[in-house]
Amino acid sequence: MQLKFKSVEGSVIAPVGYRTAGVFCDIKRLGTGKGSDKGQKRDLCLLVSENPAAVAGLFTTNQICAAPVKVCVPRVAKGLAQAIVINSGNANACTGRQGMKDALLMTSAAEKVLGLPDGRALVASTGRIGVTLPMAQVLAGISAAAEGLGSGVAHAVHSAEAIMTSDTKPKTLAIEFKMGGKTVRVGGMCKGAGMIQPGMSPTGARPASIPVGLHATMLCFLTTDADVAAKPLQSALNQAVATSFNRITVDGDMSTNDTVLLMANSLSKAPSVRKTSGKEYETFLAALSYVCLELAKMIVRDGEGVHRVVTVKVEGARSFVEADAAARSVANSSLVKTSWHGGDPNWGRIIDAVGYSAATVVEDKVDIGYRAIGSRKTQWSLRRGQPTRTSFAELWKTVQADEFELIIRLNLGTGSALMYAADLTEEYVDFNKGAIADPSQAGSLGG
Amino acid sequence: MQLKFKSVEGSVIAPVGYRTAGVFCDIKRLGTGKGSDKGQKRDLCLLVSENPAAVAGLFTTNQICAAPVKVCVPRVAKGLAQAIVINSGNANACTGRQGMKDALLMTSAAEKVLGLPDGRALVASTGRIGVTLPMAQVLAGISAAAEGLGSGVAHAVHSAEAIMTSDTKPKTLAIEFKMGGKTVRVGGMCKGAGMIQPGMSPTGARPASIPVGLHATMLCFLTTDADVAAKPLQSALNQAVATSFNRITVDGDMSTNDTVLLMANSLSKAPSVRKTSGKEYETFLAALSYVCLELAKMIVRDGEGVHRVVTVKVEGARSFVEADAAARSVANSSLVKTSWHGGDPNWGRIIDAVGYSAATVVEDKVDIGYRAIGSRKTQWSLRRGQPTRTSFAELWKTVQADEFELIIRLNLGTGSALMYAADLTEEYVDFNKGAIADPSQAGSLGG
Repeated sequence: MQLKFKSVEGSVIAPVGYRTAGVFCDIKRLGTGKGSDKGQKRDLCLLVSENPAAVAGLFTTNQICAAPVKVCVPRVAKGLAQAIVINSGNANACTGRQGMKDALLMTSAAEKVLGLPDGRALVASTGRIGVTLPMAQVLAGISAAAEGLGSGVAHAVHSAEAIMTSDTKPKTLAIEFKMGGKTVRVGGMCKGAGMIQPGMSPTGARPASIPVGLHATMLCFLTTDADVAAKPLQSALNQAVATSFNRITVDGDMSTNDTVLLMANSLSKAPSVRKTSGKEYETFLAALSYVCLELAKMIVRDGEGVHRVVTVKVEGARSFVEADAAARSVANSSLVKTSWHGGDPNWGRIIDAVGYSAATVVEDKVDIGYRAIGSRKTQWSLRRGQPTRTSFAELWKTVQADEFELIIRLNLGTGSALMYAADLTEEYVDFNKGAIADPSQAGSLGG
Repeated sequence: MQLKFKSVEGSVIAPVGYRTAGVFCDIKRLGTGKGSDKGQKRDLCLLVSENPAAVAGLFTTNQICAAPVKVCVPRVAKGLAQAIVINSGNANACTGRQGMKDALLMTSAAEKVLGLPDGRALVASTGRIGVTLPMAQVLAGISAAAEGLGSGVAHAVHSAEAIMTSDTKPKTLAIEFKMGGKTVRVGGMCKGAGMIQPGMSPTGARPASIPVGLHATMLCFLTTDADVAAKPLQSALNQAVATSFNRITVDGDMSTNDTVLLMANSLSKAPSVRKTSGKEYETFLAALSYVCLELAKMIVRDGEGVHRVVTVKVEGARSFVEADAAARSVANSSLVKTSWHGGDPNWGRIIDAVGYSAATVVEDKVDIGYRAIGSRKTQWSLRRGQPTRTSFAELWKTVQADEFELIIRLNLGTGSALMYAADLTEEYVDFNKGAIADPSQAGSLGG
């Protein structure tokens, strides 16, 4: 479905009836030992709907999952929410019973200060793993954020900043479109950077149909003033995430905290969507999918140390599962990723990574080609397993761009899958080696 | 079985009845465009037994496998060989029909110059993928090597040099031990550096019991003067490789060319081994396993850009397959590997990688600890999912060493597995990005 979407300002507060605030409450310094020399970075965000909203969510399928994820899963399943409290600097993961208490306290503190019934607030965290939250600061932050709530563009910017960890810039988008003649908006903000290869499901349980081994902390918060009931809302989010956040990888590591949450408060006066089919549902799904995909690509582009983004398209596999396996194998190969960094159209490493993947591959059937963004012409470097006469200089020029597409045709069936992937750079290694001169700084960064 | 092995000089020519030569025939310059400025590096090796030898071999399970692998598999299955010809600088992979012709021509040229019957020579290649061999040079090299054959220590050194690609040093070992009162020797040489996570099987077919996704070009050539029939020889090699080369990873990429070949020429006068049990078999297996493990560790230590080697031990998994999955997930996690580079005992990233692996994991059962090489004391950083009181300074000290052990106990069963793994450094990225200033240099390095 081709739809025209108009970009609008305000990200999560672009739809009618949402307020937000992003504040500094000193979690990062206390949580990572790294905040103090970075100035007062905002680290706590509150996002609130005027009225009770239908809610949908997807969560990491990592078996080690953070306390906020455990708190959200059953709440989202009930389909109703009105507020989300988010902190950065501390993932509240691997924090045991204290972590669960703290996550629940964050929600109850938000509910109390906002005057909401019990269970109406959700929570998400990102940052250091294995350290309990500095709750005095967090609770002060929740109060400060509640006092600062507003629906100006600056509010949205502060919130997008407050959820960042190693991100270099805030990532936001909002669009406007028509449903039944009424103006509807979808807005979102997200964060990523490292530990990015989400494989999320609505319950955090691993679906049998998704290959185990999908591997971010990525957080995404979406709002809409469309009137969509919880069930079709979850269905639309499942579909939108399947073609966006679950198709990206920065470093192949799946986080303990990956979370996407979507509130729909129905204040647009557009027709109500009560089922997972029909024109209105399809319109909403297309809009949501567009926002998710654009936000997901922002995460890859702003991944830790990323210089170059590559869309890996595998076609002609025996099944989607095999196409997915081949695409992930290529997208996560250290040798392929370093060759992308060098701007080297190295098809030898690509076919090698396809060959050791779980996908069935027959050497003399494989085509490998490159396509410039916006171009319809594929430059084939390999056809039926044999190098073509395409000049290296021509391929080289295409892979020098900041973004390009890699087309891998297995020619064995109709299964296809794509991954939005990134190169592997010295900056990634340098950032993540986290060499510690002072061993008194205990613990671990993650999330 | 604890045996005393005496180290001896000469690697592959230490056992009685072997001759070898390593020569320069200019494959690297023609094959990679990189040789010319590196001086005349030896690039072709011949290894010959005085008499027909029993032979065993294991080969990459990558579905994209090089021509020399395809030539060797059926020859090794027949159990008899007398010579191996090996080139570096060009992998002869993804080279189609011409590649198969060239690989066969290498064997027939070796057979002819050595006066051997058809089918008695084996072949292995490592280097650039996707470019046909410069056969005039290769054939001249085979003739030169045949003329230069000898059994001096210098011959062995030249051969170990001739099989190197990005290796910084030759990797060789030979040991002497007793079988039935007679002195027997096992010798070997190998190469590795990048594209190192072998998953080899005797036929190159993927065994169902090994998780797909095992992922080097590693080449290893072993000789012995023991009298072992082809069947027990293959059995012993399968076992030795399962606990050595198939347990290492540098970068998680499995090559198209991984090959281990073992000749047994029975010239030691030790008792004949005809079955896969009994004291003599066990003695031989122990010796072979020792040589394979020491050589495999040399490959990890000399991996591209490697600063630090970590033995990842997973215990208490529900099965070997699950233990293996968890160990490989940790051993190949970019975030874990960069933290090792930084000397950071970052258990958060480790438990994250275990959590997204195919192994079943229960957060509050997981123990994670560190052990210095040669120490019996495990420093636990996590017990039953909770951080211990072990000081960060203590853990930090252990992980500053060039090598250490990481112990992960899942406490769910009796499955265990270990991986010899490496850190991920800026040097690895810099070496492999292969940034190309002159796009007239076509093709791709691999193998």
